[in-house]
Amino acid sequence: MTEAENTQRVEFRVSPDRYKHWKLSTDGPVATLTMDVDERGGLVPGYELKLNSYDLGVDIELYDAVQRLRFEHPEVRTVVITSGKPKIFCAGANIRMLAASPHGWKVNFCKFTNETRNGIEDATASSGQTYLAAVNGTASGGGYELALACEHIMLVDDRSSAVSLPELPLLGVLPGTGGLTRVSDKRHVRRDLADYFSTKSEGVSGKKAVQWRLVDEAVPRPGWDETVAERAAELANRSSRPQDAAGIVLTPLTKTRDDDAISYDHVQARLDRDAGRVDISVKGPHDHPPASLAEAARHGARFWPLAVTRELDDLILDLRTNEPELGTWVFRTEGDPALVLAHDEFLLVNATDWFANEVLHYLKRTLRRLDVTSRSLIAAIEPGSCFAGSLLELALAADRSFQLAGVFEDKDPDAQPATITLGDMNLGPLTMSNGLTRLQTRFWGDEVGYEAAAKRKSEPLEAEDAADLGLVTFAPDDIDWDDEIRITTEERASFSPDALTGLEANYRFAGPETMETKIFGRLTAWQNWIFNRPNAAGPDGALRRFGTGQRAVFDRKRV
Amino acid sequence: MTEAENTQRVEFRVSPDRYKHWKLSTDGPVATLTMDVDERGGLVPGYELKLNSYDLGVDIELYDAVQRLRFEHPEVRTVVITSGKPKIFCAGANIRMLAASPHGWKVNFCKFTNETRNGIEDATASSGQTYLAAVNGTASGGGYELALACEHIMLVDDRSSAVSLPELPLLGVLPGTGGLTRVSDKRHVRRDLADYFSTKSEGVSGKKAVQWRLVDEAVPRPGWDETVAERAAELANRSSRPQDAAGIVLTPLTKTRDDDAISYDHVQARLDRDAGRVDISVKGPHDHPPASLAEAARHGARFWPLAVTRELDDLILDLRTNEPELGTWVFRTEGDPALVLAHDEFLLVNATDWFANEVLHYLKRTLRRLDVTSRSLIAAIEPGSCFAGSLLELALAADRSFQLAGVFEDKDPDAQPATITLGDMNLGPLTMSNGLTRLQTRFWGDEVGYEAAAKRKSEPLEAEDAADLGLVTFAPDDIDWDDEIRITTEERASFSPDALTGLEANYRFAGPETMETKIFGRLTAWQNWIFNRPNAAGPDGALRRFGTGQRAVFDRKRV
Repeated sequence: MTEAENTQRVEFRVSPDRYKHWKLSTDGPVATLTMDVDERGGLVPGYELKLNSYDLGVDIELYDAVQRLRFEHPEVRTVVITSGKPKIFCAGANIRMLAASPHGWKVNFCKFTNETRNGIEDATASSGQTYLAAVNGTASGGGYELALACEHIMLVDDRSSAVSLPELPLLGVLPGTGGLTRVSDKRHVRRDLADYFSTKSEGVSGKKAVQWRLVDEAVPRPGWDETVAERAAELANRSSRPQDAAGIVLTPLTKTRDDDAISYDHVQARLDRDAGRVDISVKGPHDHPPASLAEAARHGARFWPLAVTRELDDLILDLRTNEPELGTWVFRTEGDPALVLAHDEFLLVNATDWFANEVLHYLKRTLRRLDVTSRSLIAAIEPGSCFAGSLLELALAADRSFQLAGVFEDKDPDAQPATITLGDMNLGPLTMSNGLTRLQTRFWGDEVGYEAAAKRKSEPLEAEDAADLGLVTFAPDDIDWDDEIRITTEERASFSPDALTGLEANYRFAGPETMETKIFGRLTAWQNWIFNRPNAAGPDGALRRFGTGQRAVFDRKRV
Repeated sequence: MTEAENTQRVEFRVSPDRYKHWKLSTDGPVATLTMDVDERGGLVPGYELKLNSYDLGVDIELYDAVQRLRFEHPEVRTVVITSGKPKIFCAGANIRMLAASPHGWKVNFCKFTNETRNGIEDATASSGQTYLAAVNGTASGGGYELALACEHIMLVDDRSSAVSLPELPLLGVLPGTGGLTRVSDKRHVRRDLADYFSTKSEGVSGKKAVQWRLVDEAVPRPGWDETVAERAAELANRSSRPQDAAGIVLTPLTKTRDDDAISYDHVQARLDRDAGRVDISVKGPHDHPPASLAEAARHGARFWPLAVTRELDDLILDLRTNEPELGTWVFRTEGDPALVLAHDEFLLVNATDWFANEVLHYLKRTLRRLDVTSRSLIAAIEPGSCFAGSLLELALAADRSFQLAGVFEDKDPDAQPATITLGDMNLGPLTMSNGLTRLQTRFWGDEVGYEAAAKRKSEPLEAEDAADLGLVTFAPDDIDWDDEIRITTEERASFSPDALTGLEANYRFAGPETMETKIFGRLTAWQNWIFNRPNAAGPDGALRRFGTGQRAVFDRKRV
């Protein structure tokens, strides 16, 4: 796996005609996503994807399907997730793949699968596209966690199908995709029953699964299809998705990629391997926003806010997965702040339109992906940049931001000084996982500071103003600029990458907690710890011994 | 350290006349806790406690002092924590001790120090005993974290003293005692400033420390003593602690301890090393509660609720530290439920009295210690037990509970069947770290279930009723009883101890999060992970290389 990881980049761009593991079909308001994993279609050699178990490749297709359903299928109101295999819904993440993977791969894999499941919940909550898990066979581990991400869980009641979280008893690890959190905080399974359930490898079935709240209904096999269809129709009736809108086709991204650079239409990244750094540049729109929703729909995937979001999304996933040694990402922007704000306004004015709504929530999810990325994020705000509204979120998401005071006297003395501009996009719609905006999180516990900043909405703020208001971290002048950024990135590269990951995970989310922050903050951290312990990943650990016929040998000390 | 840990048990019982590292003095309403660590007084050989750095032994004394101040000094309203050494307030946890310690020791050490700092905040919030940090020299790492636990932080402004969190840049780990969480969620330091501060090993001093909210005031050395006294007096004036009450002396606990058993007056523990299990039995009161507060005060440390809480507290700490391989604790009680409830009522009726208030909050803190204990907790509810009110919390804190349906036909066919009884003590005062009661946490998201249970308050509930109401997990009869408990404890002993720790840490705290749950749930998990990584604890890791003159060698991959 290590070798494969080094020699072969993972590519996240896929489309339904190339799916190996899923079938996506639609029938009016109901879409069906059928999981039918190709055993030999693993992303990396060395394991077979038996029993509808999955690896990153399977989940990349799922992510693609979830995205396309939102944009390409405005008519779809219910998405049924079910299995194409007899007696098994999904066996979860492939154990041999996990056992053979290096630590970083496991963690990154879990992060992405978590984001996709959060995306499923976001489709239900924000798009009126409700997910229904039609669990037509046993759902174990990640299989049950996939069902948990759905709004309604139906389990076939056939005296053999069960839901289970066998990770602890069989593998000595925790469910890695939000299982514990959703069992307790979403489905409200009583803690002692949840404890019992999570230690019972064979799981719970039938009426008991309903009684314990693990599923919503247990349905006998005769009549199963009819009941699923009935429930799907009921859920569809609750939706306000449009009936007659045409979908927006997510055309293939234009991307070039080599060892030193990744380029899209609006986003460029230069990879500096010596410095362990990526310099990312995001271009603002060239034109005014469309005059109407109809025109925006004609722009389709070329509509700037959608195009730039897709590019950022792909870049984040590519860098996270393929470039773990590039520990610092420096964000710059380029363009006219007024045009960014105009596009923001277009989206917000039309927020009740399904397409504008989808773009807004996609941007929200992509920025959330950035928040949970284990890389140091730096924003460099220079003359000619357009850190305004939606693009200012990149600076607000950063661990530190630098805004040039004045201009580069040597290079361009007549330039306009760099500004940042708060817009309505910073004051509500783009919430973080903690339910707050990045601006609220920044000023958590400082109402006065928040109000002082928010009052300056729409006003281009030069460096000193922005620093005084607490909107940027530092405001060096051109004499210090290069040194300050260089020192910060060099210093960052000299620190323990693990400690930085822990620090950033803690400071980025002040204030309240949600299921999402619990999954990324608490559950992930425990899982990472357990993944690192000899009791799981050591040569005699449960994860490595699984399936060998030998029992794991545990160090019995509790810590 | 490993050897020492195995051959020498850590003892938590101490008293001011035996302190090596702290001086406790009182002057009317103001107490002063002066840290003056004996370099050669380490708990374990192999390191010197230079620069007021601390190990578990230093913190055991601090915990003792915090406890005694609450019980023995009703007149004390402000506690000033300061240093007896010139130019240094406290350098935090001793690095050589940490570097040489096995993983479990580090984690347990951090847990205890966290509990003590939470106790400092509890004294401020619940007892009107407000802590003031008089930082009269540099406070780094755990030294600053100690100050963060205080309500008000004064930093001497002498152009050399600073506050800092140098763990990340110097040691490649995180601050282990709540530092990150308190910086962001208590002191509301802006996240980018917090990030900068936590990567700057020399820290921040003077006015900038005030401006960034890291401390409350920076005071020049001339006039320091006067300003501290002034501030202490101001804080004392806000308190409603009594002026003329006599303290309750925390007399030495009666404890016998050998390899197989730990015994106190009301609490017994049998240590079964083969089974990896501890059987804990708690005796209810023999007598009716005192007729008056004056009588309770005369009972002093023998007053049953206080005595049993002190014993439980000591037992938890002893087992946690000295018996890491005993992974399951089985709780039983013995006595008259009515007498337990009568004592509870006495405390609640007199809750505005300072002594009753202290006992209540001490019980609350001790139960919270149980919640964050990384052992599987089982309650076995049998005939003759007294799981009522405050003692029922032991069953509600358990991961699973068993209540015998009927009686033991062979042993005692004429016994009264076991009952549990909810009381007012279960409905409010004994909150968990998440701010909810254990009953609320149990029924989180199930209002109907909560109401149905709460309505049965004061009613002795036999097993089937209790199980139907969801108050116990299982209600086996006497034919199955021994097997069920045996199977559960054997099964528990067969699982990965690390995965159990993660599972329990997740399921015990449903619902809302607080600073305390963030510290124990999120920050601790990240720290545990980092402690386990080669970048910190490996032979070339930062923690091991610190002070050797060699730089750490990091695996640069981000995960």
